[in-house]
Amino acid sequence: MADIIHRIGVQAPPARVFRALATRSGLINWLTWHVTGEPAPGTIVRLRFGDDGRDMKVLELSQDRRVRWQCVAGPREWVGTEISFELAPGNGETIVRFAHTGWAEPGDFMAHCNCKWAYFLLSLKTWVEDGRGTPYPEDRKISSWG
Amino acid sequence: MADIIHRIGVQAPPARVFRALATRSGLINWLTWHVTGEPAPGTIVRLRFGDDGRDMKVLELSQDRRVRWQCVAGPREWVGTEISFELAPGNGETIVRFAHTGWAEPGDFMAHCNCKWAYFLLSLKTWVEDGRGTPYPEDRKISSWG
Repeated sequence: MADIIHRIGVQAPPARVFRALATRSGLINWLTWHVTGEPAPGTIVRLRFGDDGRDMKVLELSQDRRVRWQCVAGPREWVGTEISFELAPGNGETIVRFAHTGWAEPGDFMAHCNCKWAYFLLSLKTWVEDGRGTPYPEDRKISSWG
Repeated sequence: MADIIHRIGVQAPPARVFRALATRSGLINWLTWHVTGEPAPGTIVRLRFGDDGRDMKVLELSQDRRVRWQCVAGPREWVGTEISFELAPGNGETIVRFAHTGWAEPGDFMAHCNCKWAYFLLSLKTWVEDGRGTPYPEDRKISSWG
């Protein structure tokens, strides 16, 4: 098994970061314009990236502290993996600890997704801080894989 | 042990990506303005990020194919780790497979550096493609850690 982990700081209170992660109106501004479903524990949120997609079961929404999803449909390598965003107040910022855990192997696709998650976490940061995110469809793909 | 891996595509021939990785005049445009030393196998290249720095021993410069460094001075967690950039022609692009291997543990600092490497690899891409990199000092730090 292999995991993706990232850590960023967002210059905003945890409540604002949580709202960006825990609501459809938040997600569309930093992750993808194509989100179906309003996140609630136990529901499915459908994220679309053109012809590509992931269906996420919402495992947890702990106010201002944690969001957890499980991928229930999408690329074979993703199905069954879990994604979590842990929030903690830091040095004038909200620390976001991101993890995408349960990858079968650390191959090319995981390396691509790792870089892509960083791209979207930076988008989360700029969206919350300045109202300027870079959700799908991004201006610039990180490779011909999207 | 834990590794960081990324995969991006740069819309340019391998020779142009290699030049950005294997020369001081390349590195200053996407990684940091503060580079001392011209890369050559066995030499030390000093990268500075304000008060922070890393000294990299150049292990390999294989024309248009691979660059490898070993960190010989810098943060405790980095010393002894290896960094590699593998280049391969792809679908109208050069695929860059990046690895930073030999981390003792996958903790907060590795998560920070993982996100930061993605940031700088995107900078490498935009520098080579359009002449617009985001080397240190970046406009926006990913957190109060830099």
